Amino acid sequence: MRTREDCLKLDADDPLGFARARFSMPEGLIYLDGNSLGALPVTTAARVEEVIAREWGGDLIRSWNTADWIGLPLRVAKRIAPLIGAGEDEVIAADSTSVNLFKLAAAALKHQAPRRVILTEGENFPTDQYVLQGLEALPGGAAELRTVAREELLDALNDDVALIALTHVDYKSGAIHDMAAITAAAHRVGALALWDLSHSAGAVELALNGCGADLAIGCGYKYLNGGPGAPAYLFVARHLQDKLVQPLSGWMGHAAPFEFASQYRPAAGMLRFLSGTPVVLGMAAFEEGLKTFDGISMREVQAKARVLGDLFLSLVESRCRDAGFVIGCPRDSAKRGSQVCLWHPEGYAIMQALIAEGVIGDFRAPDVMRFGFAPLYTRYVDVFEAVTKLAEIMRSGRWHEGCFQVRAAVT
Amino acid sequence: MRTREDCLKLDADDPLGFARARFSMPEGLIYLDGNSLGALPVTTAARVEEVIAREWGGDLIRSWNTADWIGLPLRVAKRIAPLIGAGEDEVIAADSTSVNLFKLAAAALKHQAPRRVILTEGENFPTDQYVLQGLEALPGGAAELRTVAREELLDALNDDVALIALTHVDYKSGAIHDMAAITAAAHRVGALALWDLSHSAGAVELALNGCGADLAIGCGYKYLNGGPGAPAYLFVARHLQDKLVQPLSGWMGHAAPFEFASQYRPAAGMLRFLSGTPVVLGMAAFEEGLKTFDGISMREVQAKARVLGDLFLSLVESRCRDAGFVIGCPRDSAKRGSQVCLWHPEGYAIMQALIAEGVIGDFRAPDVMRFGFAPLYTRYVDVFEAVTKLAEIMRSGRWHEGCFQVRAAVT
Repeated sequence: MRTREDCLKLDADDPLGFARARFSMPEGLIYLDGNSLGALPVTTAARVEEVIAREWGGDLIRSWNTADWIGLPLRVAKRIAPLIGAGEDEVIAADSTSVNLFKLAAAALKHQAPRRVILTEGENFPTDQYVLQGLEALPGGAAELRTVAREELLDALNDDVALIALTHVDYKSGAIHDMAAITAAAHRVGALALWDLSHSAGAVELALNGCGADLAIGCGYKYLNGGPGAPAYLFVARHLQDKLVQPLSGWMGHAAPFEFASQYRPAAGMLRFLSGTPVVLGMAAFEEGLKTFDGISMREVQAKARVLGDLFLSLVESRCRDAGFVIGCPRDSAKRGSQVCLWHPEGYAIMQALIAEGVIGDFRAPDVMRFGFAPLYTRYVDVFEAVTKLAEIMRSGRWHEGCFQVRAAVT
Repeated sequence: MRTREDCLKLDADDPLGFARARFSMPEGLIYLDGNSLGALPVTTAARVEEVIAREWGGDLIRSWNTADWIGLPLRVAKRIAPLIGAGEDEVIAADSTSVNLFKLAAAALKHQAPRRVILTEGENFPTDQYVLQGLEALPGGAAELRTVAREELLDALNDDVALIALTHVDYKSGAIHDMAAITAAAHRVGALALWDLSHSAGAVELALNGCGADLAIGCGYKYLNGGPGAPAYLFVARHLQDKLVQPLSGWMGHAAPFEFASQYRPAAGMLRFLSGTPVVLGMAAFEEGLKTFDGISMREVQAKARVLGDLFLSLVESRCRDAGFVIGCPRDSAKRGSQVCLWHPEGYAIMQALIAEGVIGDFRAPDVMRFGFAPLYTRYVDVFEAVTKLAEIMRSGRWHEGCFQVRAAVT
């Protein structure tokens, strides 16, 4: 069992310790929800102010060229690519994760016709399931969604399957899929594999190309620190880019958007996966968020993530022994992303008590208390203090007393 | 013919003259491109700074509740509704215009089955055409796009037609459709009518409900001053809302997004037209942009728009008589939005010369010089000065001499 002093020593020796200064962290708060909304980088406010005052206010429409607003989706993507094991020409920033999933799943289905089955798991992130359900419900019946349990996925991969679509790190349990093995199994039956990296990128070392992944999507506002509702991104393996055409074929994906031709003609490469005009303020903030990864080794990030998670769980095991928690995530850190979860029937009230005392995690129905560790700014001592608070709350029972209103929280 | 003094007098008497102080306008620039990117409101920078520093940086994930980020799509929409003649419960801000068109056109098609024809005109805004082409190209063949000339639209409305989708004010010519007449004609054959208001809202008095319109979409970054790539919005008439389900069924459109259920269940009312997480910085800036319309009468806006356009055209007619311009917009101000256009075979070079001398309009291939008037900040004297510059450039021929690089511009 680690002491507070052990944790301070770990922080002092942390090769990523310098990165916390890249963030503006509120005094006295222990923030274990960077998997839901990443913290604010210190450079973001000034950069967005510059975009507003000088680029928009001063140069107005000219900034599409002079400030290269038009280049933002690819410029931002270049910073994402190395974090996910992709080539710089295989990623683009755009829209939301949900919208990007629709684009890629629809494009993949069209490419894979006459196959029409999309395979996913019942525990996939809800918005991914909803979007695939939306695709299935389109008139014309071009898609059939097949939803199976996690352990049945490999058996369900057969030559009906056009696409397998999974979230790499489970949003609740933190369990991590074997991207290489599942992708290879998909390819053996002629299916494509699409990975949602929302709960992986920025916390886990990723190798999309190393795993032969075909397609991926991900979120900008979690570990990538892009800000609330930041634009999302998508990945298409180089060899597939010119074979796929997505249906949200807005003008920014046109081969020559400023010709204003009447007929859609998809751009070469990743630009064809754009739809409408990029949201410039969001893109600028996203770019600053990604700069927090400058000079950072994702191998070190993942290594620290594992130790942080193990520390949390072992402290809970030793210090909250009789509190009724069940560990709901893989105990083996190799099998989970940078988050842990505890199940408790009173999880909602306990989490509210924790938040009231300055430890921010989140709650997912029905009984999941979720704690995320952002290795760029989460310290070992934060984990120690968080579990100390949790143990105190459980021992004193003061989560019973609180009057904790039901409130929405955003994953 | 008006003199500069006449124009100064018009400005002094302008009942909307006070509104220019709501914008941060660059010194010495005459900006006639608010139909492409609206000017910067004076309150936007401080508001976005507050969102970044206090709401994101300080309160982090809690701001979804404490700062009501979760309410932004409907809160922003409440400010749009009165500008477009809609009820507050008939509008929501989300995504891009292109993405919103896809949602509504797909939802309308499903509702109108077995009808499958979408009728539009060949001059419709290109991104609208591209998105409808994308819908048509979806596997399953649920949509058939029928594109006819503007003057053939009414004849082409028959009982095959599921939906007629048009842009209310033409992006190039500024010509305005008769929304009431076309909507009524669509209804007579059982079709729905969808209006793209991107080049109308904020410049033209609109009465979606007065015209019986079914669906509408529009852009936040033109006359609504929401900032570059601002979120867009969509309108669904009250009686249709619960009958339509759109396919980009992301979690924010779920009846209970925070239950994280596996099955999509569309929210009641406008929320079902959301997809992913709202882009908070863009929404906050959009909200400030809409505040520039506080206490503004859209009737007065449209009246001023007409006089500004007439002033521009009559000055061009009198002062650029032999310059080879052809007026490419309706001469009757009742038939056009708040923009005019001039055709000239050397329009590109002439526009570059104008821009180099501080008059910002824009150019659309092959020969269209476009000038937009934003009645909240465009002054009569601006129009006078713009035409003075144009006349000087044409007289001196100095647009021949310039070395004007080809550059993209965003509509």
